[in-house]
Amino acid sequence: MTISYAKIKRIIFGEPFPTRAEIHERLDKVRALAIFASDPISSNAYATEAIMSVLLLISVGALRLTLPLALGIMTLVLLVVFSYTQTILHYPKGGGAYIVTRDNLGVTPSLFAASALLIDYILTVSVSVSAGVRAITSALPQLFPYSLWLALLAIILLTWINLRGIRESGSIFALPTYAFVGGVLLIVFIGLGRLFGVFGAAAPEAVTVPPRLAETAGNVGGFLYVWLLVRAFAAGCTALTGIEAISDGVAAFKPPESKNAAQTMIAMGVIAMSLFIGITYLATHLHLIPFEQESILSQLARSVTTGVPGGGIIYAWVQFFTMMILVLAANTGFQDFPRVSSFLANDGFMPRWMQNRGDRLVYNAGITVLAVVAAVVVIVFRANEIRMLPLYALGVMLGFTLSQAGMVRLFTKISKLKPGETAQTRMTTIHYEAHAGWMRLLPAFGSLVTFVVLVALVVTKFMEGAWVVVVAIPLIVWLFRSINSHYATVANQLSTRDFHPSQIRAIADIVIIPVGDIHRGTLRAIRYARQISNNVQAVSILTNPDFEARIRRRWARFPDVTTGVELRLIEYEYRDILTPLVDYISRVSLEEYPGQLVTVVVPEFLTDSFWGQLLHNQTANFLQRRLRGNDGIVIVDVPYLIPEK
Amino acid sequence: MTISYAKIKRIIFGEPFPTRAEIHERLDKVRALAIFASDPISSNAYATEAIMSVLLLISVGALRLTLPLALGIMTLVLLVVFSYTQTILHYPKGGGAYIVTRDNLGVTPSLFAASALLIDYILTVSVSVSAGVRAITSALPQLFPYSLWLALLAIILLTWINLRGIRESGSIFALPTYAFVGGVLLIVFIGLGRLFGVFGAAAPEAVTVPPRLAETAGNVGGFLYVWLLVRAFAAGCTALTGIEAISDGVAAFKPPESKNAAQTMIAMGVIAMSLFIGITYLATHLHLIPFEQESILSQLARSVTTGVPGGGIIYAWVQFFTMMILVLAANTGFQDFPRVSSFLANDGFMPRWMQNRGDRLVYNAGITVLAVVAAVVVIVFRANEIRMLPLYALGVMLGFTLSQAGMVRLFTKISKLKPGETAQTRMTTIHYEAHAGWMRLLPAFGSLVTFVVLVALVVTKFMEGAWVVVVAIPLIVWLFRSINSHYATVANQLSTRDFHPSQIRAIADIVIIPVGDIHRGTLRAIRYARQISNNVQAVSILTNPDFEARIRRRWARFPDVTTGVELRLIEYEYRDILTPLVDYISRVSLEEYPGQLVTVVVPEFLTDSFWGQLLHNQTANFLQRRLRGNDGIVIVDVPYLIPEK
Repeated sequence: MTISYAKIKRIIFGEPFPTRAEIHERLDKVRALAIFASDPISSNAYATEAIMSVLLLISVGALRLTLPLALGIMTLVLLVVFSYTQTILHYPKGGGAYIVTRDNLGVTPSLFAASALLIDYILTVSVSVSAGVRAITSALPQLFPYSLWLALLAIILLTWINLRGIRESGSIFALPTYAFVGGVLLIVFIGLGRLFGVFGAAAPEAVTVPPRLAETAGNVGGFLYVWLLVRAFAAGCTALTGIEAISDGVAAFKPPESKNAAQTMIAMGVIAMSLFIGITYLATHLHLIPFEQESILSQLARSVTTGVPGGGIIYAWVQFFTMMILVLAANTGFQDFPRVSSFLANDGFMPRWMQNRGDRLVYNAGITVLAVVAAVVVIVFRANEIRMLPLYALGVMLGFTLSQAGMVRLFTKISKLKPGETAQTRMTTIHYEAHAGWMRLLPAFGSLVTFVVLVALVVTKFMEGAWVVVVAIPLIVWLFRSINSHYATVANQLSTRDFHPSQIRAIADIVIIPVGDIHRGTLRAIRYARQISNNVQAVSILTNPDFEARIRRRWARFPDVTTGVELRLIEYEYRDILTPLVDYISRVSLEEYPGQLVTVVVPEFLTDSFWGQLLHNQTANFLQRRLRGNDGIVIVDVPYLIPEK
Repeated sequence: MTISYAKIKRIIFGEPFPTRAEIHERLDKVRALAIFASDPISSNAYATEAIMSVLLLISVGALRLTLPLALGIMTLVLLVVFSYTQTILHYPKGGGAYIVTRDNLGVTPSLFAASALLIDYILTVSVSVSAGVRAITSALPQLFPYSLWLALLAIILLTWINLRGIRESGSIFALPTYAFVGGVLLIVFIGLGRLFGVFGAAAPEAVTVPPRLAETAGNVGGFLYVWLLVRAFAAGCTALTGIEAISDGVAAFKPPESKNAAQTMIAMGVIAMSLFIGITYLATHLHLIPFEQESILSQLARSVTTGVPGGGIIYAWVQFFTMMILVLAANTGFQDFPRVSSFLANDGFMPRWMQNRGDRLVYNAGITVLAVVAAVVVIVFRANEIRMLPLYALGVMLGFTLSQAGMVRLFTKISKLKPGETAQTRMTTIHYEAHAGWMRLLPAFGSLVTFVVLVALVVTKFMEGAWVVVVAIPLIVWLFRSINSHYATVANQLSTRDFHPSQIRAIADIVIIPVGDIHRGTLRAIRYARQISNNVQAVSILTNPDFEARIRRRWARFPDVTTGVELRLIEYEYRDILTPLVDYISRVSLEEYPGQLVTVVVPEFLTDSFWGQLLHNQTANFLQRRLRGNDGIVIVDVPYLIPEK
């Protein structure tokens, strides 16, 4: 059984890696970008559209504000990327919002940041997988009734890929990520070329405005106008999700870790923003209008490629890899959730076993917990990502706000150093840097803007579901605190400080052995009991008066084994023999040997198959379960195996 | 925890009964009839209709054959009741088809009888519950989408009632059973009275023939005619299901058990057949015709009560209790399945634990297994009893055929005795009886007729689903045989015949104790290990090079405990520490002490809450699970409880 289980495990998850192989499993920058950046890059599939959809509530004319808003968002993204690059360089062992906030703002803010981000990573998985499945069912409507199952299947696949190890999953994710980036860049390139007549071709024509939407466009003014602009900006901030991932995963990079991570971070920001601005520029200059039946990216790809040789292939390419990257965006959650969990577990705020790495050097427990929780969310929302969206992105904004505020504090500390001076914060080493005081302005501004976006998101989406997150974050913080105080209690109770061996509980020289019948199995157990004690009591429960004579007769047949062992027969007028056994053992333990360890020898009788085991009264098993958890009772399990032929 | 669990159990299932209370839990005849006869009595809700529906395939005129066929079925029922009355009197400890067949025809036929009957009891539950739910959803169509859930709920309710004990469930079942019997008798009484003008009232008018059905009636002749008559007869034989139950439940009656059981059996036959013939007589004389929208019983009740003062109430009464008794008919399955299972378990053909009686003196395991399997059937067939019906009633007919054939053999044995002589069969005592030779004719004829019905059922319904049962019966017999041979092997292996204590495996003086860290829990376990052996090895797995110095330092701090104990440190380059531990223990066991018992002391560290337990690496737990099932290793579990504050 054990051998075949291990084999199956190897086939599914691959050979275990020794701990020293960790360095070989590290990521180069090309793979790292694919594995960590799928979420921010995939945002380009819908970020422009998200802004335009809100602006359309003002008027069709307001769509010309899309590009300025997009440039504003780009500025914010570059600010955040800058902050995180600084974080990576200052916290070379990895430092997302949790670490930075903890080091600079204290434990409680850091737990809020961690709780917010964990919620968001779960939603990243649920939302991305559901959106990807919707893309598939749009193409193949006959699959629509199976949406939920497809989404769960996608989660299982992602879990499996991630459990196989980070380097391998990096390879798997590279192709679709780069294919998407390449396809969109090609569209932008052709589109710009045609727009400016570089190729000598006519400029592409915009898709006709769908009449229904053209009619709804009205005129608004004053406060509502500003409010809608803020909402449009906040909607576009979906482009910011997932930026955090690299900073938590610094330790997964090949050395020099922090330099490679920082470069990958910058590459990610530049690539994602080029796509974003390219798409937005073309979409507005081609006068595209968002409508339900076709996404802006699809409209863009279609109008740009129409009339271009091979245009159909380019269009299909972009559509296919858009669908792929929407599913794979979930992977950012799979990267970051287990890492942040392992940091928290290491600090005793989450179960300790979440910091263990499995056979393939990934955080198996974190990956599994994420998969289960995300699956629950998918089931609750029936794989409908539109209903999940109001809960999404809040967590990220809270994380960014706290993390950048933390960086402001860190730069303040650095600015107080004299040239050449070095100091130690709780979690890292800081050195003198010129202009550290001025550097603070960037994260300070970033923190302020993300805070405003956070407020906008909470206010606009509170009733649609954001309240769930607002309630959940402090609850999770409270959970972290409870877990931490549990570990503190346990450590204190187990501590050997001021402990003297004389405090170890005395061991009573008594062994109780429950005996149902006298057979080879029980004889072995009685022999064992006599070996470890001079005071052995065999206890048998009589539920049937005929049984007494029988057991006494059989007992007497083996004087070599039973001499010196007291046989106690207890009459009991119910059928549940465990209760009198447990009562007897407790009485002996509490009354005759209070404060001492009493030993119970349980003869256990095994067959070598699961089915065989099913056919027997599992008395030994149930007895052990009832006695376990009793601090004063040592259970000795003496097995007797019956080979089945 | 344990206390509150026991309390909840008592609230749900009631106080446990002592074994001596068994006699008080016995059933009087009034309750027994209600509890055992719900299935045969409920058959009246549809048996007449079942015959008529087949006859209608010949012609509307053929419906006049309903009464003769019903009289034939009545004769058969009375024959079977007679056989079973004889069985009960000859097997006073209870004797359904399994016992009688085993005693007279041998083990293999008896297993076929048992397997057939167990399948039928499962189907009794699934079919009755689904039919009852259909009756409810016909009245309240808005409940239709929840049919499956309602059926499962009904199974849960029946399970609960049956687990509370037989006498209590007898009281619960008495009201609806007698109310149904009373209601139908009242209808028959009024109907006959009006038909013969006794009340001075006009004879009731028949419901109009629905035109669609009148048209379909054609003419058939020759072989097909005979075949349809046989099928109509077989369809009416649904009235025979459930007759067996009392014979298996003799032991549940108040003394004198067999006399009371036989009387109840006869009362059941007389009541069920009075209703059956009364309904059939009226239905044919009122020229009722079965059609889909309204059952014959409802048509009858309606036409009889129309124009009678209070007739509406009587009609509603009959309809309501018809619905009730259809659900409660499932109870016959709940009575018989656990009893037949306990007989089989007692003989080692089913798991032994199926013969144990629970706190309320009922066969908990049998009741639970039945509920689970019946629920699975209900789920597979989506609570559609029409699709289950082709599988139903075959098992009963096979059981009757074998059981009555067995009675023929028994009477043959009795007929060979001389006056005053007594003999012993394997399972009962027989005495001389006058006319025993002639008595054989009745069960012989009954056996032949039930065999013909069995063949008719199999042939007509084979493709519609009966093949499942035809395949399942021998498979289950094979399963019984495998279980039996497993128990024989085990008994043989455990047997102390020719066993000498010197054959008991030697106990090696070695204790291995896995140690993760040195704390109060492990110190206690090391002290215990030293108490039971002079040769203690503490084993620690190093997955991290820093760990060695730490553990050696802490080890040295407690010389009182650790002196004389060898500390073995094993370096391991994977993270899964169980594998090297298990490997080490196996190596010591197999290479250093082959053929001897090696002891492993496992320090287990407990918290007093489930949530607390979740927060710890369950290494001790997993280690025990990996080592269990190894015949040569004794596991000693030394607990250390951390109270949580």
